[in-house]
Amino acid sequence: MASVRLALAQTNPVVGAISSNLEECFQQVKLAAAEGANLVLFGEMVATGYPIEDLAQRHTFVEQAEQAISAFATRLSDAGLGDIHVVIGHPAIVAPDKANGWAIAQNCASVLHGGTVVGTYAKHHLPNYSVFDEYRVFVPGNESLNFEIDGLRFSILICEDIWQSGGPVAALKGNNTDVALVLNGSPFEAGKQQTRRDLVAKLATENNCAVAYVNLVGGQDDLVFDGASLMVDAIGAIVTECANFEADRQLVDISSRSEVVKASPGAIKSGDELEDIWNALVLGLRDYVGKNGFPSVILGLSGGIDSAVCAAIAADAIGAQNVHGVSLPSVYSSDHSKSDAFDLADRIGLPIRTEAIADMVAVAENQLKLDGLSAENLQARVRGLILMSLSNLEGHLTLTTGNKTELAVGYSTIYGDSVGGYAPIKDVAKTVVWQLARWRNERADKLGQTPPIPENSIVKPPSAELRPGQVDQDSLPEYDLLDSLLELYIDERLGRDEIIARGFEQATVDRVIQLVDRAEWKRRQGAIGPKITGMAFGRDRRLPITNRFKQN
Amino acid sequence: MASVRLALAQTNPVVGAISSNLEECFQQVKLAAAEGANLVLFGEMVATGYPIEDLAQRHTFVEQAEQAISAFATRLSDAGLGDIHVVIGHPAIVAPDKANGWAIAQNCASVLHGGTVVGTYAKHHLPNYSVFDEYRVFVPGNESLNFEIDGLRFSILICEDIWQSGGPVAALKGNNTDVALVLNGSPFEAGKQQTRRDLVAKLATENNCAVAYVNLVGGQDDLVFDGASLMVDAIGAIVTECANFEADRQLVDISSRSEVVKASPGAIKSGDELEDIWNALVLGLRDYVGKNGFPSVILGLSGGIDSAVCAAIAADAIGAQNVHGVSLPSVYSSDHSKSDAFDLADRIGLPIRTEAIADMVAVAENQLKLDGLSAENLQARVRGLILMSLSNLEGHLTLTTGNKTELAVGYSTIYGDSVGGYAPIKDVAKTVVWQLARWRNERADKLGQTPPIPENSIVKPPSAELRPGQVDQDSLPEYDLLDSLLELYIDERLGRDEIIARGFEQATVDRVIQLVDRAEWKRRQGAIGPKITGMAFGRDRRLPITNRFKQN
Repeated sequence: MASVRLALAQTNPVVGAISSNLEECFQQVKLAAAEGANLVLFGEMVATGYPIEDLAQRHTFVEQAEQAISAFATRLSDAGLGDIHVVIGHPAIVAPDKANGWAIAQNCASVLHGGTVVGTYAKHHLPNYSVFDEYRVFVPGNESLNFEIDGLRFSILICEDIWQSGGPVAALKGNNTDVALVLNGSPFEAGKQQTRRDLVAKLATENNCAVAYVNLVGGQDDLVFDGASLMVDAIGAIVTECANFEADRQLVDISSRSEVVKASPGAIKSGDELEDIWNALVLGLRDYVGKNGFPSVILGLSGGIDSAVCAAIAADAIGAQNVHGVSLPSVYSSDHSKSDAFDLADRIGLPIRTEAIADMVAVAENQLKLDGLSAENLQARVRGLILMSLSNLEGHLTLTTGNKTELAVGYSTIYGDSVGGYAPIKDVAKTVVWQLARWRNERADKLGQTPPIPENSIVKPPSAELRPGQVDQDSLPEYDLLDSLLELYIDERLGRDEIIARGFEQATVDRVIQLVDRAEWKRRQGAIGPKITGMAFGRDRRLPITNRFKQN
Repeated sequence: MASVRLALAQTNPVVGAISSNLEECFQQVKLAAAEGANLVLFGEMVATGYPIEDLAQRHTFVEQAEQAISAFATRLSDAGLGDIHVVIGHPAIVAPDKANGWAIAQNCASVLHGGTVVGTYAKHHLPNYSVFDEYRVFVPGNESLNFEIDGLRFSILICEDIWQSGGPVAALKGNNTDVALVLNGSPFEAGKQQTRRDLVAKLATENNCAVAYVNLVGGQDDLVFDGASLMVDAIGAIVTECANFEADRQLVDISSRSEVVKASPGAIKSGDELEDIWNALVLGLRDYVGKNGFPSVILGLSGGIDSAVCAAIAADAIGAQNVHGVSLPSVYSSDHSKSDAFDLADRIGLPIRTEAIADMVAVAENQLKLDGLSAENLQARVRGLILMSLSNLEGHLTLTTGNKTELAVGYSTIYGDSVGGYAPIKDVAKTVVWQLARWRNERADKLGQTPPIPENSIVKPPSAELRPGQVDQDSLPEYDLLDSLLELYIDERLGRDEIIARGFEQATVDRVIQLVDRAEWKRRQGAIGPKITGMAFGRDRRLPITNRFKQN
């Protein structure tokens, strides 16, 4: 009776780091071989990292990747691993037209065996929506690829292929496929893991085949790949899953399409949305910092909820000792803004210092005769200047602590509180920031640890403290209402009248829509941050700055 | 004998301003009718402006545009203009799936006649390269549209359709088309007008038909549509052209595909590359300022060439009185940096003031103990803070004066000299900045006007003046060499070894490539500015920030 031991190899590649990505793959194959695997499946474009964007059009990049894959096949064979079938993702050049230095590439998966590339499959369905631009950089493939091991027939598909009908999915039955091997680069969104499980189960039952789904893991700029690779049998039952948010390798033994059993201790996870979001934010920050070679981060600590949550995420990601807090009080700062910041630092155990902004503000205010909004913005800009100066002096990455709600309505000072290379809660609505703070504190409680976020930062009315007695709700609707309205306008793309029909006050709707539309130029200059929703600001939502559309 | 009088109506729409765009179209039809036209051709998506990006996915937007087109047809008829055939560009919804608020739209051109929409054509070839994302937001059409007037057969095509073979181009002969009517939204690039002329002539001769090519004109964010609409007869001879960089309307009388004569004084232009670039930069700035409702601009004047050229462009665009210069001297500023800035202001006639940065710099430097790079960046950031404060106080749009070479190698201080909403010379290499300065001064000389750029700003060695005696060439290769190298790496996408093979020193190539790759995060937060080359920073060149690719 047939039996193939398949390793689901969920790794965390770095875009462009071809040789270290493949070194990690080599170690994975070696370990899987030692565990008795004779088939190893990696994620989409694991050799180069993903997404590579316009690097796909640079012929030296794609050639280097292709050559590395051939060399990898040889290396496996030289190491006595040539008997193992390895399925690995990488780009390849279709048309070797180097006349202008451009590559015409495909998003591929190759089968390596016996020291050579025995077959290469090119992705059929190229996603060109949301954050993806694959029609821009790849040409679609149009042929299926399948191979046999020990009487079992395997077919290869890549990510978007299984989200669309037609093409390779339609060929599964005709090929009499026992096991579909799917390489994925599927970024995290809250709730998406269940969507993927349902999709994979449906693929299995509709085509009467087992499905191995291997995702990447790790942060890449504004995307977080959450892993959660899985195996289902032909009746759609989940056999095993890889870990969320970390590298993992799980084994399954396949006797037939309907007889698939797990051969390692992987477990099916119960999802908790806030936990998943927190972990995505932590991984996104950790990998941005680590993959870009920063030793540490710096951020302003205002005593408010946003900077507190960012500091806690950063401490979970890279260790509290690498998170440098700065209290930046002004003459308008409340006592609690300082004490809450120090309480936070104390709870987390992060280094904090105070840099008062009063002297710089006074000199600028007097020289430039500022008042009102220009004086408020000045305070935020002096804070930004201080953080960037300390970043330059000490080598930290500056974090900017704005949340999605603020970004949406432009409630920030450009070149002020928005300065920084990475925005940890950019895609987290204000109401979710509070939920995350409570969730993180509760988790600490459960584990017998000190809750990181001061209760006072959670319960006090949010304020930018740029003038005496100021609170956010002087300028903005209550956050519950505001976030609901923004969800309808931004995520669901409803029109003004449709939103009003949902029960919102007309004047509020008009004002919020205007704020959102007018803030586009600020968002365009904002730092990147991890996408956790179906509609993140950035390449997920591409709108003109110059735009006079009047909603109806 | 047949005779159709065709008006090429080259207008400057604003994205989203559907009713005022169509009001302008109405006036154009009325004027053309008074001139005897019985066919009026507008540019691509003129009703909504172009490109509309993800607005195409908002169903209220596309529905509003479609309804406006129907109403426009009625209005024409009500005004006694129903006999005229009007061909006009707009988006339309294919699949009216409003379940999630998303539209599934096409990029269309409708023929209006007798008070109704008598036919609608959907663009077949959707550009999804360079700055375009049309596969993202539109679905392709697959049917030709042609109609007859007075025995002449007209076929409609939209922009990219004529840059690709197959589809509607292939149908021209089969349809026995006399005149191809092509609606375009083709952005300016230096040298592109001749490419278009050649393409249109080839289309005519290969398909034995006359071709009317109407382009949009005007700035839209980082794109400048240069107009230059044209008419060629079936032997490929240019009959007439519309103006460059301004709205225009030209008439031709068409007796047959090979008998086309001009009926208005449009003239074929002789191209001057520097003049075209200058005019593109002027129009881009004017429309960004005007379409976004700014009364004026403000910029720092350092006495250097970049700020001088930006000021001259701005003055040409919106009038010197609306261009506010600020001299921002430091303790390291040379006498000439101040005197050259005042000389420039005097030549141009723009208001200038001085805001010394010394006091703010001293306070920050002392408080934060800055020196070296952090102290240099501080100076730039205090300048940025002053400009933004004055912008907040007085309502000006802040211009940032960095050139393409600086942006490429990251030779700027983020949140310092990079502050601003618009970057007039963002896509202009340093060597071209000097050429433009000389060209603009020569033009003034020829016209008997005062040359705007001080000779000293052109001839002195470029310096950021952030430390005593500093010049750019302390840190960077000579600009001639640097710009040639950048062209190979960025525009031509050559690899390291290929660039070295062109005769560049290995150490220089490695250093420049590293500078370019490492500056990606800064570019991502930069202001938009007008594209004038085939490879502008921004959506033309999409690269990951996290990227460890080592060139070979």
